[in-house]
Amino acid sequence: MTNRSELPTTRDEAVRRDADDPLRALSAHFDLPTGIIYLDGNSLGPPPRRAIDRLTHVAGVEWAGGLIKSWNDANWINLPKTCGAKVARLIGAAADDVIVADSVSANIFKLAGALWRRYGGAVGFEAGEFPTDSYVLQGLSDLSGAPLRQLPSGADPFAGDVKVFVKSAVDYKTAAIADISHIEKKAQAANGAVIWDLSHATGVVDLDLARDGALYAVGCGYKFLNGGPGAPAFVYAVGELAQSLRQPLSGWMGHAAPFAFDQQYAPAVGVSRFACGTPPILSLSALDAALDVFDGARMAQLETKARTLGDMFLSRVRSAGLETISPDVGERRGGHVSLRYEHGYEVVQALIARGVIGDFRAPDIMRFGFSPAYLSYADVWDGADALLSILQTEEWRKPEFAVRRSVT
Amino acid sequence: MTNRSELPTTRDEAVRRDADDPLRALSAHFDLPTGIIYLDGNSLGPPPRRAIDRLTHVAGVEWAGGLIKSWNDANWINLPKTCGAKVARLIGAAADDVIVADSVSANIFKLAGALWRRYGGAVGFEAGEFPTDSYVLQGLSDLSGAPLRQLPSGADPFAGDVKVFVKSAVDYKTAAIADISHIEKKAQAANGAVIWDLSHATGVVDLDLARDGALYAVGCGYKFLNGGPGAPAFVYAVGELAQSLRQPLSGWMGHAAPFAFDQQYAPAVGVSRFACGTPPILSLSALDAALDVFDGARMAQLETKARTLGDMFLSRVRSAGLETISPDVGERRGGHVSLRYEHGYEVVQALIARGVIGDFRAPDIMRFGFSPAYLSYADVWDGADALLSILQTEEWRKPEFAVRRSVT
Repeated sequence: MTNRSELPTTRDEAVRRDADDPLRALSAHFDLPTGIIYLDGNSLGPPPRRAIDRLTHVAGVEWAGGLIKSWNDANWINLPKTCGAKVARLIGAAADDVIVADSVSANIFKLAGALWRRYGGAVGFEAGEFPTDSYVLQGLSDLSGAPLRQLPSGADPFAGDVKVFVKSAVDYKTAAIADISHIEKKAQAANGAVIWDLSHATGVVDLDLARDGALYAVGCGYKFLNGGPGAPAFVYAVGELAQSLRQPLSGWMGHAAPFAFDQQYAPAVGVSRFACGTPPILSLSALDAALDVFDGARMAQLETKARTLGDMFLSRVRSAGLETISPDVGERRGGHVSLRYEHGYEVVQALIARGVIGDFRAPDIMRFGFSPAYLSYADVWDGADALLSILQTEEWRKPEFAVRRSVT
Repeated sequence: MTNRSELPTTRDEAVRRDADDPLRALSAHFDLPTGIIYLDGNSLGPPPRRAIDRLTHVAGVEWAGGLIKSWNDANWINLPKTCGAKVARLIGAAADDVIVADSVSANIFKLAGALWRRYGGAVGFEAGEFPTDSYVLQGLSDLSGAPLRQLPSGADPFAGDVKVFVKSAVDYKTAAIADISHIEKKAQAANGAVIWDLSHATGVVDLDLARDGALYAVGCGYKFLNGGPGAPAFVYAVGELAQSLRQPLSGWMGHAAPFAFDQQYAPAVGVSRFACGTPPILSLSALDAALDVFDGARMAQLETKARTLGDMFLSRVRSAGLETISPDVGERRGGHVSLRYEHGYEVVQALIARGVIGDFRAPDIMRFGFSPAYLSYADVWDGADALLSILQTEEWRKPEFAVRRSVT
């Protein structure tokens, strides 16, 4: 919890806070463009220098020089596991219980398919869940006949016939952190299972899945993990439980012996069976290198800094009368905040023109992400300044900011 | 068809053939390591220089400099389609009918799932098909209840209850080219559908899917397309047919309006609905650049050169008494040949020690790939020389060549 009285109230105080920041060294891993304040790491993290260096090496030396031999000699074949072990450290999982593979969407399909076959009942998700989660569950339901339930947000997911429940650990809109332990207790009482979507949580929230009794999860590599655009995602499943799961995307990389070329599928040990096709080694290597930025970092410090940055930002922009849809100062909240404003689209464009990059979600949500790995308190102070100025001067009314571009 | 009498019979003739090679200019795109003769492009193509340059640019400029804005400004968001259009040129498809996404394994699942829902019946594949194809179909069958049939190789796939048939256009073991037109006629007569796995065909065989009546296909980006290790794969589906398909991996990138964040899934137009999660842009960009190597190249010339290289290789090594399991000289055959030899593992290791890289498939198959884009006739002549020498001198008996490594 951050006490509001501890928040910097002047730019000088923000600068002093930076001098005392135990995470200050992390920002040396990044070369953000000059003049940019990047408040969109919740959508796409910037490259750690080592990720770019690694990519250069993998392409120019391992691929160009080692050719096919690099599958063994550069250990490409084990990268989904070794990279998974690096993710495991950040989420409170055993090293062997995470594998990096495919996309979050594909991984939800695999895990929900496998768990529905095991737990039965219906598959559920909450109204307002990140869209791809519900899209994929619709696809799973159409193919398999698994009953699908859209539940009211905050309802007891297991009150009805739902046995497999998909939920974001950090809500993509509000950044509210779910009570993982509480929901897992309900799941266990109902003989059900939860798939945690950690996309907006990993790398910024102090997750401890083992402590909280979470058994299954998926998550994203390109947001707070800074693994690169469309970086591969991950699957977490506790080993002894994974051991009895049959996931539907049973490609050869999840086979017990991929290069034996057996005709019959036989799943690999534990979570490794959640691999499917040949992994995209270039993208996977960038993620693998980016994860090393977190070596020795304490997730509790990262979560606290992210929330404090958000609290400071909210405390400053509150005066402008913006509606906050994120949990308020002092509550547990992930790495971003969302503000509602009728002219949010134009304001975000005006901010970008000033070098302050946030994002906009239709119809009227402005999102600002506070990655503790590379943002300073002074950065966020200045970002808030820019937002206040744009609102006060109505700079956002300039015609060029109303031009709609395709948005991501 | 290559008449055997036209094959180079001396190294000088091979060198002269290189001087007349209309595809000679293509090899300037590649920087293969000095002293290496690379006969494994059927497993992993080497990097075209432009793929490495593009990767450097995408990472260092688009990701590091453009950050989230590059989804629009660098057109990452359309890369699955623009890259798909480049693949389309090579397989005789309309530009809009191919999308690059995910892996071959995932794409077989998507397409077989969608087609089974449309065509009904059972899903079939031949004994000896590339293993991941059958593994994925087992996963699909287990989840959906689709009946699964393993058919004898060469049988009429639609003689029984099979309505959806998966078949490689080029067999991964023998390199035999399937008679696409013939099998499509059987499919149409039976109101069935064929999914062509083009993994070992694209970039080396003169495919004309439109001419041959092929409606659905998947294929690989990292073999003869040289897109990089684990490069994303592709899906082909004729637009007006794709329009009524519901593929099960219905992630947000296949949604008609991904950034509208609707709660209901609504598929994108045509084959675009076969996208699923956020694509791995780094790997995808390398593939996209690699495809430009084929600009202006005639696939008929590539196929002829690949087969001629293989014919020359077979004609030379025949004297050593190796059993060929590939179609013989003069028949239609893809870009590789497979030879059976009891000590194949050791021979392949001895070849690698001499800088001639082929691959080994258990229990006793040596495979050699003849990518026409970067191999010269002299290269293949010298590769055959090395093989003959290793067999004649029994160099493969050296103890170090018997050490088993994990193989890919």
